Amino acid sequence: MVGHAFMGAAHSQAWRTVNRVFDLPLRARMVAVAGRDPARVTAAADRLGWTEAVTDWRELVARDDIDLIDICTPGDSHCEIALAALAAGKHVLCEKPLANTLDEARAMAAAADMARLHGVRAMAGFNYRRVPAVAYLRQLVAAGRLGEIRHVRAVYLQDWIADPQFPLVWRLQRERAGSGALGDLGAHIIDLTQHLTGQLISGVSALTETFVRERPLPADASGLSASAGADSGQTGPVTVDDAAVFLARLSGGGLATYEATRFATGRKNALRVELNGSRGSAVFDLERLNELEFHDTTAPEPERGFTRILVTEPTHPYLSAWWPPGHIIGYEHSFTHEIRDLVEAVATGADPEPSFTDALRVQGVLDAVERSAAADAAWTPVPDAAVQPSATPTGGSTR
Amino acid sequence: MVGHAFMGAAHSQAWRTVNRVFDLPLRARMVAVAGRDPARVTAAADRLGWTEAVTDWRELVARDDIDLIDICTPGDSHCEIALAALAAGKHVLCEKPLANTLDEARAMAAAADMARLHGVRAMAGFNYRRVPAVAYLRQLVAAGRLGEIRHVRAVYLQDWIADPQFPLVWRLQRERAGSGALGDLGAHIIDLTQHLTGQLISGVSALTETFVRERPLPADASGLSASAGADSGQTGPVTVDDAAVFLARLSGGGLATYEATRFATGRKNALRVELNGSRGSAVFDLERLNELEFHDTTAPEPERGFTRILVTEPTHPYLSAWWPPGHIIGYEHSFTHEIRDLVEAVATGADPEPSFTDALRVQGVLDAVERSAAADAAWTPVPDAAVQPSATPTGGSTR
Amino acid sequence: MVGHAFMGAAHSQAWRTVNRVFDLPLRARMVAVAGRDPARVTAAADRLGWTEAVTDWRELVARDDIDLIDICTPGDSHCEIALAALAAGKHVLCEKPLANTLDEARAMAAAADMARLHGVRAMAGFNYRRVPAVAYLRQLVAAGRLGEIRHVRAVYLQDWIADPQFPLVWRLQRERAGSGALGDLGAHIIDLTQHLTGQLISGVSALTETFVRERPLPADASGLSASAGADSGQTGPVTVDDAAVFLARLSGGGLATYEATRFATGRKNALRVELNGSRGSAVFDLERLNELEFHDTTAPEPERGFTRILVTEPTHPYLSAWWPPGHIIGYEHSFTHEIRDLVEAVATGADPEPSFTDALRVQGVLDAVERSAAADAAWTPVPDAAVQPSATPTGGSTR
Amino acid sequence: MVGHAFMGAAHSQAWRTVNRVFDLPLRARMVAVAGRDPARVTAAADRLGWTEAVTDWRELVARDDIDLIDICTPGDSHCEIALAALAAGKHVLCEKPLANTLDEARAMAAAADMARLHGVRAMAGFNYRRVPAVAYLRQLVAAGRLGEIRHVRAVYLQDWIADPQFPLVWRLQRERAGSGALGDLGAHIIDLTQHLTGQLISGVSALTETFVRERPLPADASGLSASAGADSGQTGPVTVDDAAVFLARLSGGGLATYEATRFATGRKNALRVELNGSRGSAVFDLERLNELEFHDTTAPEPERGFTRILVTEPTHPYLSAWWPPGHIIGYEHSFTHEIRDLVEAVATGADPEPSFTDALRVQGVLDAVERSAAADAAWTPVPDAAVQPSATPTGGSTR
Repeated sequence: MVGHAFMGAAHSQAWRTVNRVFDLPLRARMVAVAGRDPARVTAAADRLGWTEAVTDWRELVARDDIDLIDICTPGDSHCEIALAALAAGKHVLCEKPLANTLDEARAMAAAADMARLHGVRAMAGFNYRRVPAVAYLRQLVAAGRLGEIRHVRAVYLQDWIADPQFPLVWRLQRERAGSGALGDLGAHIIDLTQHLTGQLISGVSALTETFVRERPLPADASGLSASAGADSGQTGPVTVDDAAVFLARLSGGGLATYEATRFATGRKNALRVELNGSRGSAVFDLERLNELEFHDTTAPEPERGFTRILVTEPTHPYLSAWWPPGHIIGYEHSFTHEIRDLVEAVATGADPEPSFTDALRVQGVLDAVERSAAADAAWTPVPDAAVQPSATPTGGSTR
Repeated sequence: MVGHAFMGAAHSQAWRTVNRVFDLPLRARMVAVAGRDPARVTAAADRLGWTEAVTDWRELVARDDIDLIDICTPGDSHCEIALAALAAGKHVLCEKPLANTLDEARAMAAAADMARLHGVRAMAGFNYRRVPAVAYLRQLVAAGRLGEIRHVRAVYLQDWIADPQFPLVWRLQRERAGSGALGDLGAHIIDLTQHLTGQLISGVSALTETFVRERPLPADASGLSASAGADSGQTGPVTVDDAAVFLARLSGGGLATYEATRFATGRKNALRVELNGSRGSAVFDLERLNELEFHDTTAPEPERGFTRILVTEPTHPYLSAWWPPGHIIGYEHSFTHEIRDLVEAVATGADPEPSFTDALRVQGVLDAVERSAAADAAWTPVPDAAVQPSATPTGGSTR
Repeated sequence: MVGHAFMGAAHSQAWRTVNRVFDLPLRARMVAVAGRDPARVTAAADRLGWTEAVTDWRELVARDDIDLIDICTPGDSHCEIALAALAAGKHVLCEKPLANTLDEARAMAAAADMARLHGVRAMAGFNYRRVPAVAYLRQLVAAGRLGEIRHVRAVYLQDWIADPQFPLVWRLQRERAGSGALGDLGAHIIDLTQHLTGQLISGVSALTETFVRERPLPADASGLSASAGADSGQTGPVTVDDAAVFLARLSGGGLATYEATRFATGRKNALRVELNGSRGSAVFDLERLNELEFHDTTAPEPERGFTRILVTEPTHPYLSAWWPPGHIIGYEHSFTHEIRDLVEAVATGADPEPSFTDALRVQGVLDAVERSAAADAAWTPVPDAAVQPSATPTGGSTR
Repeated sequence: MVGHAFMGAAHSQAWRTVNRVFDLPLRARMVAVAGRDPARVTAAADRLGWTEAVTDWRELVARDDIDLIDICTPGDSHCEIALAALAAGKHVLCEKPLANTLDEARAMAAAADMARLHGVRAMAGFNYRRVPAVAYLRQLVAAGRLGEIRHVRAVYLQDWIADPQFPLVWRLQRERAGSGALGDLGAHIIDLTQHLTGQLISGVSALTETFVRERPLPADASGLSASAGADSGQTGPVTVDDAAVFLARLSGGGLATYEATRFATGRKNALRVELNGSRGSAVFDLERLNELEFHDTTAPEPERGFTRILVTEPTHPYLSAWWPPGHIIGYEHSFTHEIRDLVEAVATGADPEPSFTDALRVQGVLDAVERSAAADAAWTPVPDAAVQPSATPTGGSTR
């Protein structure tokens, strides 16, 4: 694993747990973690359960006893690490967004396609696909239960930087993070809705905004939470968006609205998706990730409504391995499921999803959003929209 | 009253009730209702409580014993009736949207401004402003409790024409209705959010869609529900939008998203508005119109959350006249409150809100949305956006 | 109508509205209202829409131009008025609880049975049976959709006297009100659950409590809200229960819990009922009275859940007469529906429900609860429990 | 650890995780697991992460390299194992309910008191105390934010045996399980409400019921889920309760209702507690365990309501160690927190809570409930109710 901050901790919990809960043909060994600061990476290895700590990720790529590289660093280093790992024949799991630029993403997808010819697997870390309620909704859509999708309504709302005194962490700097709420949060809802509908976004019209343009410099620039450098009194410019909103058309003819923001006061992690189709509708909310609301228009009229399904039954994806019905799971389980599917794909020689090409498609939308926003919301087609994603429902493998 | 279909029934219930519940300086007499079909209008008068029935609205305008004209017809006749009534010195209540075109709306606003000089009052029927939870939220915003508004998220979702076999009623014909979901539903959320924030929409980027372009001709074209002319097998073209989505910027710097649709399967009357500000947030849902969710960031951190306020206390707007706390009210009460405020304004010589100018501002946004949608979502400024609406909070008069 | 306080206002709204909304074979005329205070009753008649005001209810009973007496007084006068009215051949609608004592209730039920032989109708005012969601749930239970009922969970929670400074209004005095939360709130959930399940409560084990035993005397003892006689500083004893809880067994073998309280801080009008049966479950909450949650165990396992049905469709009881789907109704509509059914019963010569005998059965449970509470929660059978109520589902007449 | 079924798996996940997430003065080593079946226990050790597997729990007690015994077996073996472990100087964590009989529980509490004198710690496994929302609510109550508690409303609803064909697993046999829903589910809500209020239940009036008295014998009698021995067609008697309901009085004067059932169709794991106090109210639901609803009567009247607090902030108990706000945790985390607190108590020489005496108090209530139910709901005081539990709020140690 490369990187050991928030994402590194979440992935480590998943690597430690996956074979304890799921029956898999391979057992994962947590060989080594890489980080730049020797003291920190050593402490992280000890804490998170990695046998060794190294200070250069190239060491991991060079070792024979490592089969898979899990990339948990900020987006500016994804491309270099992934290309090196794939070239060395290592399977790769790469956190989202795939890269900071469309060019990097294209290079990564091409490298993954090449590596695949040699049996090397690459997976992008859109972990929310593996929330059971999401996986189950994908099954419902794939089975035609929503009919033709007319509306997608997707928001990802947080509020952790609404306070103007929150410091200028790396996620607010374009050169590290690529973009702001758009790439961090927007990427998730773009991938999720393309995955759920089995359709691509064909064009967008977008606005972005940076509400707070200057912030205190942090004492320590790592991670989500950071204490402001109150002593210094120094400030720096925010170079990413605080919020992004966009309209879209889907390849299947539906209308969609998207919003990603870090200024939705009171909303902590509110990824919400609603789909309206000709035969039914569904609603998902990440803050209540064990639940799915499903409306079936084929029910008798007086009995119709949104059914709150508690997605914790053994018949739901991933859940036969966990606790009895109603005993809910949490955020971190999405990573355990992601890694479960990755390990199974590696073991069986299948291609894991989402592929780097799927992630490239997300990157293409992010890029179109930025271009539209820069051009006064001008309609901006997403290139390659004609290419259908490899969206065979994953239902079979997740039971 | 002119017109006696859905809106006519709702207004009649309000006229019958207003003096029974509220102490007002004037008592309303329900003199006469006008409708084209003699049998129908006679039955309607008898049913709805109007003393007389007439077949030409001009009769109402001409009579001396009538002081106020309540216009409940489709949008294509609003302008002619309102201009005549105002010219005759009658106070006017006009259902929304104010008109089918921006030109008509401009003429009506100008006529209202003239009439006002002679003590004649004109009010536009955006009844949802009078839902107590909405009126209370307006008070909270006006008192600065939400701080600077960064985000507005407004949808009005219905599904009554999702079935392609639903017939071609007048609301689906451009010449009668002006537009589809946009004017019918979108007008409400445009007015509501401009009212709640005290800000104007300064520009939009929009998409519209007509999912079902040909429908069976109805046996009887009045009203919302209509049985299809199944015998004939004839169909006709839908000439309005089924759905409209748009992005907007507010005069105060916030970002907004809007969606109006009649294809949101399972959503019956889901007008939902969320505001996120620097000091707090609020959520309103018309299907639970007695409730308001309010998030106050000035509360101690561990106690923060969205508070579900049951807006049924005597300290909330309009409610001291009704039932004890927790005994909820319904949709129709918004009209009773609207007419309560109108009667009080007439009695006291004040200008009721929303004025025709407020309604014109809504019309200006509707027009910009249509132009943007016709131009591939091109950014379209709303003219007159610099003019601030007369949005003094109405809190005082509603207790 | 006799009495013109809270219940009188609610009934008047219903009498004014019923023929404006429903097609009925009879049209109600609001002839006269009776009240002891001449000034007050005159003002009430004018306000509420009654043609005349009288100061003695016996006048109403004596008049030939009055066919029906609507009793809206406190419980201590119900019996005398009802017996006189029935003896005079007047139809009677009597607010709940039927009486303050079991003996009175027995006399009233017997009188109603006698009067019935002469075509005179008597109905008890358990208005919540006429909330559409309740009436629809009754249909579902009657159709076997919940199967065998195993659990009933019923609470009616309010908090309007939680403040010890709230004055000693008549509802807190045993000689006027009969009992406290038990008769006021408990009576509703007893009737509702017996009605919904079609079963009787066969025995109870109960506790009651008076948390605040001494309160300030009110300046004015009428109604729910009263300003304390702060000047005097005088107090008096509370002679009714503040709260009552009891266990029960149903005639069909199920277990039930009941709670009625005026000390549930934050709960304003929280009548909540949950039924669990062998085939399904349902939940109703009066604060969201347009909604019903229904769980159907015959659905495929992964799709099961509680479906939030918005009970506002024309296919739901009473609603074809009102507004389009999703346009919610309020508390007062339950009275309009009650009176609609009463008027229809009178017109068609049918017996309205709930009968005085149904109300007597509620009274029998209230009496058993008080006796159990007085005997340290001793198990107390409800007499006559073997008698099945005349609970044919009312579905047919309410469409 | 002794036992490796459902509870064993949950505890193992907690033991594996506790030092990876929390900074603790001791690091737990997972030495050995005991189980009767050699093949099964070996597989369990491998799967769950225990170094060794043994077939006799006495081996664990006898070993010098084991400091703590975690008892995850059915209730009939708790007493013997715990007494032996404590006598051998091992710290003990014992799953709830503490024992199958009051006598056993008394012996265990006495043994724990003795062991404590030698620095040996004993903790009962009421894991739900460690749900962050519960721990936070305990802090609010302890700080007086709810005032004097008037009402407790506690249910624990499941439905996994509602189907009469569900087989006769050990949990339905008195000799193994002690009781049915009462001991399994009722024990949790008894402990939780005594813990939250800091009060004891002083007496009860109870009913129990076994709806399905004969069930198919299972092919394999372990665990929650079991496939029926369909081949044999044999059945056996259910010897425990399917459901238990009881009224209670609290030592502080409040009224309480309790319900534990496995027949609440559609309810999977619905542990719900509502507290109403003179200053505020709170609601907790285990199916949404990251949320707490809190009503504060000291807020200005129009702003009052139930605030949905997402208990995922770093200022909430246990959560600074986990993910960012809004990234929810699950059922299993309650065990990780329980073991975190146990490890800390062992390391610092403090007494962990709940003690065996706390668990004995739960057992005393369970026993009183059974005696009351056997005596037709007769009022049954709980012995020792005068003894105040050692309920110092645990807020300090959980931050």
